[in-house]
Amino acid sequence: MATLQAIKYNDGQLEILDQLLLPESCTFIPIWNVEDAWAAIREMKVRGAPAIAIVGCLSLAVELRKLAAPETKEELCRLVQEKLDYLVTSRPTAVNMHLAAEACVKLCTRLTDNTSVNVAEAKDDIVKHLEAMLANDIADNRAIGEHGASDIMKKNATKDKLRMMTHCNTGSLATAGYGTALGVIRSLHTASKLDQVYCTETRPYNQGSRLTAFELVYEKIPATLICDSMAAAAMKQFKIDAVIVGADRVAANGDTANKIGTYQLAVLAKSHDILFYVAAPFSSIDFQIPNGHSIPIEERPHSEMTHTGSIRTAAAGINCWNPGFDVTPAELITGGIITEKGVFKPDQLAPHQ
Amino acid sequence: MATLQAIKYNDGQLEILDQLLLPESCTFIPIWNVEDAWAAIREMKVRGAPAIAIVGCLSLAVELRKLAAPETKEELCRLVQEKLDYLVTSRPTAVNMHLAAEACVKLCTRLTDNTSVNVAEAKDDIVKHLEAMLANDIADNRAIGEHGASDIMKKNATKDKLRMMTHCNTGSLATAGYGTALGVIRSLHTASKLDQVYCTETRPYNQGSRLTAFELVYEKIPATLICDSMAAAAMKQFKIDAVIVGADRVAANGDTANKIGTYQLAVLAKSHDILFYVAAPFSSIDFQIPNGHSIPIEERPHSEMTHTGSIRTAAAGINCWNPGFDVTPAELITGGIITEKGVFKPDQLAPHQ
Repeated sequence: MATLQAIKYNDGQLEILDQLLLPESCTFIPIWNVEDAWAAIREMKVRGAPAIAIVGCLSLAVELRKLAAPETKEELCRLVQEKLDYLVTSRPTAVNMHLAAEACVKLCTRLTDNTSVNVAEAKDDIVKHLEAMLANDIADNRAIGEHGASDIMKKNATKDKLRMMTHCNTGSLATAGYGTALGVIRSLHTASKLDQVYCTETRPYNQGSRLTAFELVYEKIPATLICDSMAAAAMKQFKIDAVIVGADRVAANGDTANKIGTYQLAVLAKSHDILFYVAAPFSSIDFQIPNGHSIPIEERPHSEMTHTGSIRTAAAGINCWNPGFDVTPAELITGGIITEKGVFKPDQLAPHQ
Repeated sequence: MATLQAIKYNDGQLEILDQLLLPESCTFIPIWNVEDAWAAIREMKVRGAPAIAIVGCLSLAVELRKLAAPETKEELCRLVQEKLDYLVTSRPTAVNMHLAAEACVKLCTRLTDNTSVNVAEAKDDIVKHLEAMLANDIADNRAIGEHGASDIMKKNATKDKLRMMTHCNTGSLATAGYGTALGVIRSLHTASKLDQVYCTETRPYNQGSRLTAFELVYEKIPATLICDSMAAAAMKQFKIDAVIVGADRVAANGDTANKIGTYQLAVLAKSHDILFYVAAPFSSIDFQIPNGHSIPIEERPHSEMTHTGSIRTAAAGINCWNPGFDVTPAELITGGIITEKGVFKPDQLAPHQ
């Protein structure tokens, strides 16, 4: 069984899995141009910062491939920049699309300045640059998977098969493909070292039960869904070997902001003497931020907690607290921080590894 | 604001809050006879073992009050026993209705044997016995509330107001009224010592968000709903003073079986240096059971985790683990076990206190 591909790109044809229809239906929709991508991102048919940037950039590649080269490189660059500016407005807070646009504009400037490149060649170079993002991101994720799996296997060398626990969705549906924490679990499964992965529901938005569970069923990875309240009981009863989660931002000292509930799992893992790992691209480490105290935590709408679709699940009038993330102190990340460059102890992070 | 009364009884008139309609609607339905009670219990309009027994017995009191006294005491007792046998079949696993029926049958035998009592007096005595159950249970709960609140205030003597956390529903909706753990929180609020209570959703059946939140809003007790995954983050951010939960069964050594997620809260409370209390009637302590290993844990249907009403919230085909309860080891119950007889350290429990 191949890895679930939520973003399919072949020769100028782009299709994405419509995540709004999960888990009811697994439907791919075509993206013909940047307008389609903008709408799919805005409507959250695709989510996860890396995935958003890649869908946006690939939609531009689709358009550029079909486009006859303009008269001049300046005209080409103006066109590319306009379309990138438009794509950035789809989800203004997602930094990855912004960074991707910046990198592409820099390439345009270099190509314009380079007199040995004609406009058709410039267009091809831009397309190749955009198309390479998908493969590069997947390659990084696969490297994270390999580094993580080998570290976990090394630290559990006496065990035949391992029992893992994960939180939220860090798989093909949040990245270009393969995934970060879920990529490590995929790698363990491929190496025939996975006994079972326990995935949490991840209330209130249910990324675990809707998305991670979907990926695990799709790829026939042995998995069990638990409620967030069952983590400690599962750790004790099933003798979990390691907990692995993703990261939204890692501070210079290793403190890690991730989906709400991560801190709790880290405390429980420590109490049960279970290794706790964070898996993320090296670019998620923000060396500008000394520690977790400086990471702002977004509060999300109460309706996420009080309703499921149109069904009210909480008493009317109750006050809610709905932080989207929490910060796990570095000292609880006992396994290490897994990146495409290797596995680091939190206190060993440095900008140039 | 008076305490929420989910069971209202006055002079042979019985009404119960239809819990199936919560949290959408707060509707009381009349119970005219044992058939009405049987149906309400079977359909889970009333739930919680103490509440079931009391509604059953009160429905019999309603019938007996309207009934002209039969010719003989034997005839009266036969009638009472028939109706009790029928009520027991409504939820055969709820032990409280069974125990209540046994006690009532014993009273019938005593009255029949007592030649100084005529049939009309016997009928009155049975009615009084049945009617007293409601008040007795509430009195026990109020005593739990007082003992618990004073212990918690004593251990936090330097603090003006306290921040509490609780799990599941242990209030008026699960007992005859007032509640056990939630009764302690009510008592703190009445004493103007409650700053805020944080109540967990209590997945997968949402007793916290549906029922506890309803009681707290109804009585204007300052409260905030959190997801089960947010407990550790809330403990840290809001500096919770004590966690208090109910109990389904307490073993002789103090190990406590309660709603799934309780063990996790106890581990987190310990890690955050927060007192952890269990509140339960003394009759919940099962001195026949030496420790928690002997308490069987019920596994519940996966559909509770995969669906909310008709809405699917988990990927089709995912395996689930859905234990209804977990066991908290006695050493994590750092505050104590609060009963109507006082607050006990787990290792101080004895059958005759």
